[in-house]
Amino acid sequence: MAPGDFPAALGAAAAEVQAALDAALAPLGDLAVVQAMRHAVRGGKRLRGFLVLEGARLHGVAAPRALPAAAAVEALHAYSLVHDDLPCMDDDDLRRGLPTVHVQWDEATAVLAGDALHSLAFALLARPEVGPAEVRIALVAGLARAAGAEGMVRGQALDIAAETAPAPLTLEAITALQAAKTGALIEWAGTAGALLAGADPAPLRRYAQALGLAFQIADDILDAVGDEARAGKRLKKDAAAGKATFVSLLGPDGARARAAALVEAAEAALAPYGPAAARLRAAARFVLSRES
Amino acid sequence: MAPGDFPAALGAAAAEVQAALDAALAPLGDLAVVQAMRHAVRGGKRLRGFLVLEGARLHGVAAPRALPAAAAVEALHAYSLVHDDLPCMDDDDLRRGLPTVHVQWDEATAVLAGDALHSLAFALLARPEVGPAEVRIALVAGLARAAGAEGMVRGQALDIAAETAPAPLTLEAITALQAAKTGALIEWAGTAGALLAGADPAPLRRYAQALGLAFQIADDILDAVGDEARAGKRLKKDAAAGKATFVSLLGPDGARARAAALVEAAEAALAPYGPAAARLRAAARFVLSRES
Repeated sequence: MAPGDFPAALGAAAAEVQAALDAALAPLGDLAVVQAMRHAVRGGKRLRGFLVLEGARLHGVAAPRALPAAAAVEALHAYSLVHDDLPCMDDDDLRRGLPTVHVQWDEATAVLAGDALHSLAFALLARPEVGPAEVRIALVAGLARAAGAEGMVRGQALDIAAETAPAPLTLEAITALQAAKTGALIEWAGTAGALLAGADPAPLRRYAQALGLAFQIADDILDAVGDEARAGKRLKKDAAAGKATFVSLLGPDGARARAAALVEAAEAALAPYGPAAARLRAAARFVLSRES
Repeated sequence: MAPGDFPAALGAAAAEVQAALDAALAPLGDLAVVQAMRHAVRGGKRLRGFLVLEGARLHGVAAPRALPAAAAVEALHAYSLVHDDLPCMDDDDLRRGLPTVHVQWDEATAVLAGDALHSLAFALLARPEVGPAEVRIALVAGLARAAGAEGMVRGQALDIAAETAPAPLTLEAITALQAAKTGALIEWAGTAGALLAGADPAPLRRYAQALGLAFQIADDILDAVGDEARAGKRLKKDAAAGKATFVSLLGPDGARARAAALVEAAEAALAPYGPAAARLRAAARFVLSRES
């Protein structure tokens, strides 16, 4: 597909995922915590949800089976952002162009809304329409591992530990940190389509691993040189905190070159799928042009 | 069984659950967040884990199948306590006789340790030894629902909303709040054994619903008249906060009478199981004598 067509494809996937999340949250009433959950799942690029839907399409899995899984990974990602933004964590007041949950409501509501989105992710994966029980439990096992103390939480904890470390992290350490912090969830999203089909997830895993790291390097570049209004979140936080990043370690040009090489690797991993994987190739190139 | 024999049975179940949690946490390394997870799962009565193990035994389910589910509900309960104790929530410094996680480490570590225990609960339920995929996914679906915005989090949110409500809650409202806040998880634990066996969970559900409410009334009595050293947590918090409780609404004697009637109902629900359910009957009577 032409590079210019990708934003429309991503936007269409985002609308489908939003509708699935809205439907999941509709029966839960109007307590502040539920309003906060709805707020937390608004907006965002939905790259993780897109990866689930596109990986499923590539394997001939019907959209109604894949949508709960796409909504699940976005609910889980949203929970992690709500907790990350708390005053005791990154203390952010702006997310996806909106006030963060603890700013709009309060900290207790933010803790609880994040917790409920976390549970919701697993409730969505358990839905009968996702497919055979073996498939659903494999998705649950993978998401629980990607989210927990071996994955995302481990990466967040390493990130916090880095703030008080005696020396800035090395490139190897930053790469390992990011593979856990953002990579594990992107890898789950990238391989979910193959799991839904009962197919070998190995090619999509290689794709998602390269994509996840390219995405994070692009995030570091965005943090260093991006525009807050376009990004919809606070930037230049890493430099202010004196943190080692791919940009501080490689320089802006070196970081861009590394991200470009990873995007090439991601595209190469899709070779077994041929032209059918055009959208996933476009997604990989898209991360290089991120503005949000 | 004689009432005096119950503490030994509960203690034996607690030791088994602790060993299962220790084994699950052992491979996760020694980051502060993992140390905090280990701290958070120490101690406690393990009533929820006991209910899983005993319900499984009653249905002829082997212990190695039930133990991950027992550990899962205790991991989930521990996450909820860690987040409940945060300064923005109940702001507690003592739990199970130990400093709370945010006191021993810091708030960020407490948020992350709770989050990782939450994911761990679902990872444990997904383990192959728990049984057929259909059983595991039914356990996941039930726990996700019990923990989230229809269950435990809903109850916590109602509890927070009650603090600023114009009038104290009615008995009906308090009962609904507690059915969500503590009841949903106890109900899941009570019925897990039947789900593991593929048996009808209805009798155990009736038992667990009555037990859960009796447990909460006993908690209110403990908060009003208990001893902090024996309880291992701060007490008299509800009265200080001006909250309606079963004790404030019914008086201490009325609350004890209501709890006793619920324990009778819980015992009656076990009639289909005959003498094999002696330990579950003893568990129901035990909640009336709680000191922690």
